[in-house]
Amino acid sequence: MGQSNQLAHRMASKRINLVDASGNPVVGKEVQLKQTNHKFLFGSGIFNAIEVANKNVPPDRLAFLEEKLDKFLDIFNFATLPFYWGVFPGYWGGFEPERGKPRTQELKAAAQWLKDRNVTVKGHPLVWHTATAPWLLDMSNEEILKAQFARIEREVTDFKGLIDMWDVINEVVIMPIYDKYDNGITRIAKDLGRVGIVKEVFAKTRESNPGSTLLLNDFNTSINYEILLDGCLNAGIQIDAIGIQSHQHQGYWGREKLEEVLDRFSQFGLPIHFTENTLLSGHLMPPEIVDLNDYKVTDWPSTPEHEERQAKEVEEMYTILFNHPLVEAISSWEFSDDGAWINAPSGFIRKGNSLKPSYEVLQKLIKGDWYTNTTCETDENGMVSFEGFLGDYELICGDKKVSFTLDIDAETVRMVI
Amino acid sequence: MGQSNQLAHRMASKRINLVDASGNPVVGKEVQLKQTNHKFLFGSGIFNAIEVANKNVPPDRLAFLEEKLDKFLDIFNFATLPFYWGVFPGYWGGFEPERGKPRTQELKAAAQWLKDRNVTVKGHPLVWHTATAPWLLDMSNEEILKAQFARIEREVTDFKGLIDMWDVINEVVIMPIYDKYDNGITRIAKDLGRVGIVKEVFAKTRESNPGSTLLLNDFNTSINYEILLDGCLNAGIQIDAIGIQSHQHQGYWGREKLEEVLDRFSQFGLPIHFTENTLLSGHLMPPEIVDLNDYKVTDWPSTPEHEERQAKEVEEMYTILFNHPLVEAISSWEFSDDGAWINAPSGFIRKGNSLKPSYEVLQKLIKGDWYTNTTCETDENGMVSFEGFLGDYELICGDKKVSFTLDIDAETVRMVI
Repeated sequence: MGQSNQLAHRMASKRINLVDASGNPVVGKEVQLKQTNHKFLFGSGIFNAIEVANKNVPPDRLAFLEEKLDKFLDIFNFATLPFYWGVFPGYWGGFEPERGKPRTQELKAAAQWLKDRNVTVKGHPLVWHTATAPWLLDMSNEEILKAQFARIEREVTDFKGLIDMWDVINEVVIMPIYDKYDNGITRIAKDLGRVGIVKEVFAKTRESNPGSTLLLNDFNTSINYEILLDGCLNAGIQIDAIGIQSHQHQGYWGREKLEEVLDRFSQFGLPIHFTENTLLSGHLMPPEIVDLNDYKVTDWPSTPEHEERQAKEVEEMYTILFNHPLVEAISSWEFSDDGAWINAPSGFIRKGNSLKPSYEVLQKLIKGDWYTNTTCETDENGMVSFEGFLGDYELICGDKKVSFTLDIDAETVRMVI
Repeated sequence: MGQSNQLAHRMASKRINLVDASGNPVVGKEVQLKQTNHKFLFGSGIFNAIEVANKNVPPDRLAFLEEKLDKFLDIFNFATLPFYWGVFPGYWGGFEPERGKPRTQELKAAAQWLKDRNVTVKGHPLVWHTATAPWLLDMSNEEILKAQFARIEREVTDFKGLIDMWDVINEVVIMPIYDKYDNGITRIAKDLGRVGIVKEVFAKTRESNPGSTLLLNDFNTSINYEILLDGCLNAGIQIDAIGIQSHQHQGYWGREKLEEVLDRFSQFGLPIHFTENTLLSGHLMPPEIVDLNDYKVTDWPSTPEHEERQAKEVEEMYTILFNHPLVEAISSWEFSDDGAWINAPSGFIRKGNSLKPSYEVLQKLIKGDWYTNTTCETDENGMVSFEGFLGDYELICGDKKVSFTLDIDAETVRMVI
């Protein structure tokens, strides 16, 4: 456990009045206060939860994936599950690869599996021009919007309680001008305008799950995205968190750019999620590539030298983000190099499940420096005070155990053991 | 007069039933239909109207400026007058150079002088971070906004009836990040956000003159401005026309860029004004200059070779803009090289008032190709039909004259001579 003024916003103090079943103060006893979860969301995409939960792969592969998931659960409390409407070629099979046959049950099993293990799940994304349903192309714009609404309503309703956080719409800055290929979503984005489509799909998502946390998500961190957010907020759209992608296949942003981006997107006073973070443990992608999907390599090795670099970058970046009061979540895009997007060595574990140095860095930060585990003694009134990182805790006294949550508004509480 | 399908949106047909004072049809008479003004707004900045109207310069200079203004009136029906709150160094003395002493009377005289000559006047601008009032720097942000509101209310109310068109706010895309020097407007733009400040100042302007035509104006023609407009419109701000600056000191955009800009800004279905157009008849400014104000030269000659280039560019650009159905106004930023911004040879007339080829091109287009002057004979029922460019007309029959306006919804009208 570490404490510093820079992290004051991540911590709280609590006074506990410990009494026994008869209401008498528990005096002079050793008490262990052990953090069991973070309030902050540390996570990654972990699409393999689908296979693990559904056990629909051969036993060898299943065992391998279970080992992968164990390593995920050891450090993370937050997972992104895929909801691409159509097939994402070379990456994921799609939520509704065949019209009328959504993979609802499979994804529900995965979300449940994660929830059972205390992991918060986010669905990604409900609306995007890439990997959308191809049958939208046969529709009028009015029909496309209706189909998109129906798809939002179906998924958001079906997963309510399992998934209450959504990347509602992805990459709106380029949505109406995306010209790699024709698709239904770009067509309606042209029609409705950027703010118009955000307004429509946010309203539909909110209506389907009023208590959900809804994100706008973009890789464009320029002034374009600032102006879009400004427009959306002024149009009365409730954005619960600003999603910022940070795929750094072409090199780590570095402290200066990272702080500059944080500074600019802090103007809205909204929570910020780093939704898709990538830092490589291999060679960098050439800078001239614009759409990262265009870089095709069959072998992109993770090397010891680059693993050291990745570990340093991960340490610096996560520290900067955890220090920033508005950041509430960091998701790495990948957890493992196995099955990684565009084959990149972008995970914290290698293809064979062995840990990279970056994993160990994260483990040290998330479960060490930024985690509270302390022991103290109750005074003559049965009182014990402690300061810790926000999140879930167990109070252990002898063979008794009480669970509680430490939040900003922590006050004195009475606990019975 | 020219007619082509490309210009169908600029024209209308009218049937006139000509009768005499007793109501009898005027049969078999020659009738001249003579356009006296355009509906389309062709104009420029013409700050010298202030000196001419107020006669507050030495007689020689006054005679020179009167000659300049005559040449302006020969081709243009639209004028931009300056309302920079503070001094614009090296360019214009400011509307309120000393706090509490606005030049209202001087500017009113200029606006009246132009109105008397059938010229529509636009005020430029009500809000801008450049050349704003320096005393805002001593105020809190709340006070700055209040002072800006008071300034809007004062000018817009004082000039109502003389000026009913305003560039309300200028260059909002960079407004909150403008960092050349501290200024009151950038401070409140940071506070309110881009859409927020637009919303506030549009509301105040609209309230002060509900019937006015209000523009947002920017030099940034990138996706930034599109997203800003989208945001403003979705926030319920009534923008009557999109103002696009096109200072081409570093070279003519060319057909492709011009059509691409028109295409992108047409998505909103709003009227488009080219508010600040510059095409040079001299050497071009080096491309590395970002803020055009930073280019300082004492001598920037207009040369015969470059005057030919300017004339060709003016012809092509005005033709493309006049062909586009959403464009309703083109203002050159300068009319004459005399007193031109940053000393550029950006006028249609030279420093000594002689005409450049670009002036003659405009005269041919505005008062020739795109102007209607036709003669026909009434039939046995006193009917005469004609098609012409939208605008004001005189019907002349013998020694009788009737004025009328030709607009899109032209129907058969009865005229008494």
